[in-house]
Amino acid sequence: MSLKNECPARIANLQKKLQEEKLDGVLFIYPIDVYYFTATRQNSTLWVPAQGKPILLVRKSFERAKGEACIDDIRPFPRSKNFASMFEGQRKIGMTFDVAPVQQYNYYKKLLPEVDFVDISVLNRTLRSVKSEWEVDRLRHAGKKICQVFAAVPSFLQSGMREIDLAAEFEARLRKAGGEGYVRMRAFNQELFLGLAVAGTGSGSGFFDGAVTGKGLSPASPHGASECVIEIDQPVLIDYTGVFDGYIIDMTRMFVCGQLNSKLMNAFNVACEIQAAVVAQLQPGAVCADLFDLATEMAQAAGLGDYFMGVPGENAKFVGHGVGLELDEMPVLAQGFDQQLIAGQTIAIEPKFVFPDLGPIGIENTFVVTRSGGERLTPLSDELISVWEPV
Amino acid sequence: MSLKNECPARIANLQKKLQEEKLDGVLFIYPIDVYYFTATRQNSTLWVPAQGKPILLVRKSFERAKGEACIDDIRPFPRSKNFASMFEGQRKIGMTFDVAPVQQYNYYKKLLPEVDFVDISVLNRTLRSVKSEWEVDRLRHAGKKICQVFAAVPSFLQSGMREIDLAAEFEARLRKAGGEGYVRMRAFNQELFLGLAVAGTGSGSGFFDGAVTGKGLSPASPHGASECVIEIDQPVLIDYTGVFDGYIIDMTRMFVCGQLNSKLMNAFNVACEIQAAVVAQLQPGAVCADLFDLATEMAQAAGLGDYFMGVPGENAKFVGHGVGLELDEMPVLAQGFDQQLIAGQTIAIEPKFVFPDLGPIGIENTFVVTRSGGERLTPLSDELISVWEPV
Repeated sequence: MSLKNECPARIANLQKKLQEEKLDGVLFIYPIDVYYFTATRQNSTLWVPAQGKPILLVRKSFERAKGEACIDDIRPFPRSKNFASMFEGQRKIGMTFDVAPVQQYNYYKKLLPEVDFVDISVLNRTLRSVKSEWEVDRLRHAGKKICQVFAAVPSFLQSGMREIDLAAEFEARLRKAGGEGYVRMRAFNQELFLGLAVAGTGSGSGFFDGAVTGKGLSPASPHGASECVIEIDQPVLIDYTGVFDGYIIDMTRMFVCGQLNSKLMNAFNVACEIQAAVVAQLQPGAVCADLFDLATEMAQAAGLGDYFMGVPGENAKFVGHGVGLELDEMPVLAQGFDQQLIAGQTIAIEPKFVFPDLGPIGIENTFVVTRSGGERLTPLSDELISVWEPV
Repeated sequence: MSLKNECPARIANLQKKLQEEKLDGVLFIYPIDVYYFTATRQNSTLWVPAQGKPILLVRKSFERAKGEACIDDIRPFPRSKNFASMFEGQRKIGMTFDVAPVQQYNYYKKLLPEVDFVDISVLNRTLRSVKSEWEVDRLRHAGKKICQVFAAVPSFLQSGMREIDLAAEFEARLRKAGGEGYVRMRAFNQELFLGLAVAGTGSGSGFFDGAVTGKGLSPASPHGASECVIEIDQPVLIDYTGVFDGYIIDMTRMFVCGQLNSKLMNAFNVACEIQAAVVAQLQPGAVCADLFDLATEMAQAAGLGDYFMGVPGENAKFVGHGVGLELDEMPVLAQGFDQQLIAGQTIAIEPKFVFPDLGPIGIENTFVVTRSGGERLTPLSDELISVWEPV
């Protein structure tokens, strides 16, 4: 599979679903959705009929879309009258209501008053959750790149630096390695600037749907690194995304300037054991919620249930999440998700603990679901790295 | 004015408008809108009645919202039945349709079937466009910080480095200076990762609503720095945002490793002259569209109209944009904007030219509208900086 074949195959998959659901077609207006089906992220709207050829309507830049897109019919975005005439006879059209603003919906509804727009958010996310070999290769590439940056951490981490200094050093290397920076998230109210580098306590609670939030630099940006100084013997958690060709890899490693106490070391080992147990079952047919239950039970059996996936009382209710063109893709290894895994789904597994008095600890790698369990896309030892200070 | 007084004053301004518009209240669901009125950006929904006290309903993190918010009544997000009972008797409630996804709208509509939700996007953006002294001080602080980074560019810019290397060096210093990274944009289909560092040709067209887009690192992230190498005598345009306390400053400076040719130098001087002419009129009562016309006429008179604000055929139709908690605030100095400026509005002025055969050139600073014209918030010489190579 190459990029040239990707989009036609994706569109064929979609069209099959549209026919099953008796939809006349889909209007994609959200940039990353359009990118998935066309290979271009310009300002444009994509019409995919249930049968026949898709049409890309471009606002800006037409030239660039024309040069990049893997589909044939590309036109400047038409005037209202011409737009309406393109859709004569169409009655039931899908749209991704999870991300389409009301103003956009009203705009298209006014252009096409006869059309019944229906929400295809789940259908869209379900299709995207299973990756082609080409997509898995993109994530594999992203994994190799971000591992180089993680491997370099001992060369710049030292006690006495601030979390934000550590973040800046990491981010600069990530960018130089080709990290694109745009971490897209689909969930309303969520956003992520690259990742987090946090140490010790105060890194727990926040708006972010994850185990560790970080204090951030202000209440306006309450996530990630803060100006707090990294001290000797504190757990230093570095959890970053790497975006390459739009595909997002997700990874966490632990560091310490000195030595962690036995409580933290024990929790780290439990996190690694949970990861191993979940990854062994990352096979087609496994039920998402079962894997979350497995992880939770192991945390509880180790006497660490209260601290699993967040500070007590704000524990996140998942242990893994799909990744791809967005950080929060399907499936989610979470309570209530009774879907079965499918080969080719790519999932970040991230068992973590947050102790209010000690700080965060855990591990994270990205895997692809295969018949023999999760295949790792982030090739770097899980080992906790101790950076000893010069005496 | 202090932060403690900011939110009550903002809410009082809003409530006055709601009473004029005969609305019963507003339900704010979008994070940065909630932040503006509460001083906390947690996962929460804000109810502001036309009269009486606002209520913040928090999903996560309650503790953090409680510690940060400048309002009194903070509650965990209630169950559906309790939510509905809070709104008994309310009939006409505002919501920001420009950013509210259809799924969110449908969720609240189902909770409150009797309510007529109306779009208050313009009202909201208009209120936000005029900054308090405290807000102008935040931007002044942001301006000082980002100017330090721009002033350091000659210490790390050199020919032979890639655009992305230059970007990474700039971004690392911006982060260490406290730059928060979250560049919020309100317009649908727009996004920005920090800014751009681009050199020479190939930096023109793209989805971004600005004069210069940059090639970016892939079609998935087609904006900003690329892997192209910066050559001797090429124009190097560095256009970055700096986010501090959530407030976004915007600034551009020009650099060259060697020397620019006379066509580029001439265009640079014209850009600076346009900036000066527009800034002199950045006074209360001036009409936005008139300032854009003034800029366009000056560009045309200099024989550079085709290249003004973009490559020929993709020219952006503005010369300045409001900045604040979002990069694309009101007002816009653009065609068709016949609003008058108001004292306290903060506006980035960015006359630029893009020559397909030479590359981009221009200037940008952020100003606050005052009776004596624009007061500059980005205190660094506009001068083009030539970095001479060691012989």
